Amino acid sequence: LLSESNARLGAARKLTSSRGRREAGRFLAEGPQAVREALRHRPGVVIELYATPAAAERHGDLIALAEHAGLTVDEISPKSAGALSETVHPQGLVAVCRTLTRSLVDVIADGPRLVAALVDANDPGNAGTILRTADAAGADAVVFAGDSVDPYNGKCVRATAGSLFHLDVVVVDDPKELFANNLLSLATSGLGAVELDDLDLSVPSLWLFGNEAHGLPAAVLEAADVRVRVPIYGHAESLNLASAAAICLYASARAHRFNSAGPEGPA
Amino acid sequence: LLSESNARLGAARKLTSSRGRREAGRFLAEGPQAVREALRHRPGVVIELYATPAAAERHGDLIALAEHAGLTVDEISPKSAGALSETVHPQGLVAVCRTLTRSLVDVIADGPRLVAALVDANDPGNAGTILRTADAAGADAVVFAGDSVDPYNGKCVRATAGSLFHLDVVVVDDPKELFANNLLSLATSGLGAVELDDLDLSVPSLWLFGNEAHGLPAAVLEAADVRVRVPIYGHAESLNLASAAAICLYASARAHRFNSAGPEGPA
Repeated sequence: LLSESNARLGAARKLTSSRGRREAGRFLAEGPQAVREALRHRPGVVIELYATPAAAERHGDLIALAEHAGLTVDEISPKSAGALSETVHPQGLVAVCRTLTRSLVDVIADGPRLVAALVDANDPGNAGTILRTADAAGADAVVFAGDSVDPYNGKCVRATAGSLFHLDVVVVDDPKELFANNLLSLATSGLGAVELDDLDLSVPSLWLFGNEAHGLPAAVLEAADVRVRVPIYGHAESLNLASAAAICLYASARAHRFNSAGPEGPA
Repeated sequence: LLSESNARLGAARKLTSSRGRREAGRFLAEGPQAVREALRHRPGVVIELYATPAAAERHGDLIALAEHAGLTVDEISPKSAGALSETVHPQGLVAVCRTLTRSLVDVIADGPRLVAALVDANDPGNAGTILRTADAAGADAVVFAGDSVDPYNGKCVRATAGSLFHLDVVVVDDPKELFANNLLSLATSGLGAVELDDLDLSVPSLWLFGNEAHGLPAAVLEAADVRVRVPIYGHAESLNLASAAAICLYASARAHRFNSAGPEGPA
């Protein structure tokens, strides 16, 4: 067992804070699902892997996968695993990963068809859930803009359920940068003039989702090509942010699918 | 200010436990949004209303609305308000409400077009979010079946954002009861044989959503008319329960809308 005073383990513990992650350019991915997706989808992204003896035994396949990738797996105590965890029930398996962030310019140069951007979204669970949904909908990238939560926050990483390693992650300080491209920008708003089902979503699109309580900033609403309203059929005042994002992103996925492989064949 | 040892206040405090709610047939609705929707949409459902002096001042409109409905608003200390709250930041405004549960037989007799059922869903935040989405999608009722969370759990009530008062709430112990009706029953499953976009959703439907980790029980999957898969376009293994529910319920809402008021006119 690695001692609690081990220097590498001490450096890993610092990654539970936003500042520690920023200074090191590294973050923690906890649990078998996150570790598996990191090892499978992102060669080289896992730098260190820590496991309690129980977790190492339970997840022999992952330990083998890690060793095959040239990693040495360090065994740690449950107490040390708890100190690396942001969950109530630590899973005993934690990877130190390089941050994956790409620049928006590079991502746009690749010609993405579907991008989701969070502007000032500050709930890490919601942000991670939206990233997971964006992955399921086939999005190429998720942008964390303005005062949004750190994508490498432990709660956010956990809510992505491994999807963080499946698509491009971008961090942008000034939301204005979101509009310097050819994507159709779609700002979600309960007061949007265009209803979701009336949109042509077959073109490459950038969805903009705002803060859980306050929505999108006025400047972002104005800068977007379209202000879109998800229709409300009952008496609800609004939708939860992650639910609205799921409806919008899947509307795009459906349009892309039926436009490129529908009855008329590829567009 | 009402004393902390006041008998009514003591009875209200017991409603923070599932057992207390069951025994009294009452529950707590906290915060201005829940209280407003209860007073507006469900005459007679609010039995008592408690407010801190600060909350009473901040929400004078609600106090007036309550008094207009014949209620006496009791002022309580912030400490008493905290004891009635299940949130980290108590909002100082709490209503004691009659539980709203209807029987499934009565709900079905009304001829609903869209019903959502949770089977063994045990995360109160997810359950409340799905109820809120069901309301937005125009659903007539939400059923809490099997080992699902208590719909009147404080965290669930909060996540509904007032929607709990907008539609019918049903509790069913045995999920078998869900199938004794003419609704098209749609079981969500990552392994479902039919893809969401290939379904005809224009008929009255019952959506079935399972447990966050284990999905729907085998018996429910078998009993349903159709096993439905939400397509995954990227590399995500699955969708978050509430996100999947949002996509499915809005697919139904869209089908109902375009079938009853589309270009061809009412069906």
